[in-house]
Amino acid sequence: MSSSFIPPHRILMGPGPSDVSQRVLDALARPTIGHLDPEFVKLMDEIKGLLQYAFQTENALTLPISAPGSAGMEACFVNLVSPRDTVIVCQNGVFGGRMKENVERCGATAIIVEDAWGEPVSVDKVAQAFEQNPDASILAFVHAETSTGVLSDAEALCALATKNGALSIVDAVTSLAGVPLKVDEWGADAVYSGTQKCLSCVPGISPVTFGPRAVEKINNRKTKVQSWFLDMQLVMAYWGGSAKRAYHHTAPVNNLYALHESLLMLREEGLEQAHLRHRRNHDALVSGLEDMGLSMAVAPEYRLPQLNAVNIPEGVDDAAVRATLLSDFDLEIGAGLGALAGKTWRIGLMGESSREENVSTCLAALKSVLG
Amino acid sequence: MSSSFIPPHRILMGPGPSDVSQRVLDALARPTIGHLDPEFVKLMDEIKGLLQYAFQTENALTLPISAPGSAGMEACFVNLVSPRDTVIVCQNGVFGGRMKENVERCGATAIIVEDAWGEPVSVDKVAQAFEQNPDASILAFVHAETSTGVLSDAEALCALATKNGALSIVDAVTSLAGVPLKVDEWGADAVYSGTQKCLSCVPGISPVTFGPRAVEKINNRKTKVQSWFLDMQLVMAYWGGSAKRAYHHTAPVNNLYALHESLLMLREEGLEQAHLRHRRNHDALVSGLEDMGLSMAVAPEYRLPQLNAVNIPEGVDDAAVRATLLSDFDLEIGAGLGALAGKTWRIGLMGESSREENVSTCLAALKSVLG
Repeated sequence: MSSSFIPPHRILMGPGPSDVSQRVLDALARPTIGHLDPEFVKLMDEIKGLLQYAFQTENALTLPISAPGSAGMEACFVNLVSPRDTVIVCQNGVFGGRMKENVERCGATAIIVEDAWGEPVSVDKVAQAFEQNPDASILAFVHAETSTGVLSDAEALCALATKNGALSIVDAVTSLAGVPLKVDEWGADAVYSGTQKCLSCVPGISPVTFGPRAVEKINNRKTKVQSWFLDMQLVMAYWGGSAKRAYHHTAPVNNLYALHESLLMLREEGLEQAHLRHRRNHDALVSGLEDMGLSMAVAPEYRLPQLNAVNIPEGVDDAAVRATLLSDFDLEIGAGLGALAGKTWRIGLMGESSREENVSTCLAALKSVLG
Repeated sequence: MSSSFIPPHRILMGPGPSDVSQRVLDALARPTIGHLDPEFVKLMDEIKGLLQYAFQTENALTLPISAPGSAGMEACFVNLVSPRDTVIVCQNGVFGGRMKENVERCGATAIIVEDAWGEPVSVDKVAQAFEQNPDASILAFVHAETSTGVLSDAEALCALATKNGALSIVDAVTSLAGVPLKVDEWGADAVYSGTQKCLSCVPGISPVTFGPRAVEKINNRKTKVQSWFLDMQLVMAYWGGSAKRAYHHTAPVNNLYALHESLLMLREEGLEQAHLRHRRNHDALVSGLEDMGLSMAVAPEYRLPQLNAVNIPEGVDDAAVRATLLSDFDLEIGAGLGALAGKTWRIGLMGESSREENVSTCLAALKSVLG
């Protein structure tokens, strides 16, 4: 017979979820109210405003999708891609591959621009792809590749899309609040993220924002969106600004309490301060790792401060090290994913997890385990 | 400037979410751990077992989808329906209409069997529809229509589907744990529910179960499922029994703590006791309402004990009454939906909300407001 589940207290330094503060957990556990309660509707408006701050946008269509980041990704694709469209997809890790799947499941053609795992998306290759595919209507890429710890130049890529008359779809799951992400200034058309990375909220919700060109495309669709649950025209009718909200689905009420609280905390700290904190703790971690003789998997200029890919030294048992860190230190770090499985560890310093104490703990634990 | 959101303490007697117990809220707020943590993987297995009890099934493919009931519905349709299939959809309220949308967005044809709002699905009409459409491969219907408070004969409908060589897709969002639902005994092939109704967990998760015939159909699909996020072959690889779980998406860790706790509470009480409790409080409510001169919208034999549709008396201002109940009594009851907007109230007695005190409070408040 099973009984109540009491989880261990972990230090979460993997690729997400990151540590959730007690303040956010307290908000999460407040009494549930109805998803059409006037008090809840006010909260929804506040969340939209706070998300606009986080995304640095004035887009009216900025809201949390009631499901994890993968559903936020799918929301962008199913609403913007129509059958027989041509979409340029940049692939330099796991999540570019997932974008390709999304494009193909929409009945569209994906033109893949491939870069090595551990390298950023090549802006030159994307420019070439546009030359060779003048009918491409969308450019999709990952801003911060969670599988490799690499940052790509979202500003240049969005500009390239706009110049070629295409819309951009940007995966900002790991970038939001960890590194600069300027949706309006960069002209990004559709951007999705997750709550469990640098926002340090519980997993399960995907903030998204759609710019005016994207909204126009959605409103002019000739075919219905293949997902009813993710059809933004229907989602908008519930989240929209109109006085009368149309019921679409039951919002995840308590998760939105938590998201609201985590966004408040971000605004209190300020985006720039949050970026500086992520940078500072990253520098300390890298310098500590290098002192131990470990090496980073990504060149300095492309490294994500919030997700640090470290080469696993030869002869070291990847899984055994991670298991010991978990059992003896309650410390979770991430395994390599896809092509990097067994080759790298991914050490997250995201949101609440990006703290000086965590850097020290992680370095000491690794030193102890690696001997 | 916004500040932390402190929700009012409501009594939730609408169509869901229902009251969430402190025990479930406490579980929800426990520290987040990783979605691949060995301790979390054990929890996932326990949740599967507890869901099998709730659904009364031994189906191995029984798990919670990481999104609300509408996504659970979509998971059933996109995995089981292929383009050009013929699907018989029973429509006697809002949610049958949503099923039709799902079928059409899969590129299939929906044959609609229509019954009046407030009436159950006619088994005879469905039998006729099968005669007229011998190629129909799926029958989809709502067990407990949340928009009207009507129970349909799921056992007879599932048997009819099987007899005609079709699979059944059953909406059990409002029925699970409120009235008998015997997935294996009735031979239901794919069933989805929600956490925020009679399970009295927070909203945002959709338990589903797929029987052997449904799994076989999924494994033999010739086209990819149009949703990557809801592709059960991929979801299975994470939730499946194999020792090595493949990462698919980040599970909503804290919501699953809460779901586990609410399922434990259900098993502690026992399904039969829970059904009896729902029935007893329903009887008390109906008798109190009738004593006040109010009438029920649904004939006694089809009434859902957990969701009571009440005719709004002539001359009574629907919205004003609900607003006063909310502001003066912190009591939420539901408005009519779709064709019944302005004509009925929906009084929920679901899960934790199905309590004697709530019946008394609701009756006293209504008496006071209606004068």
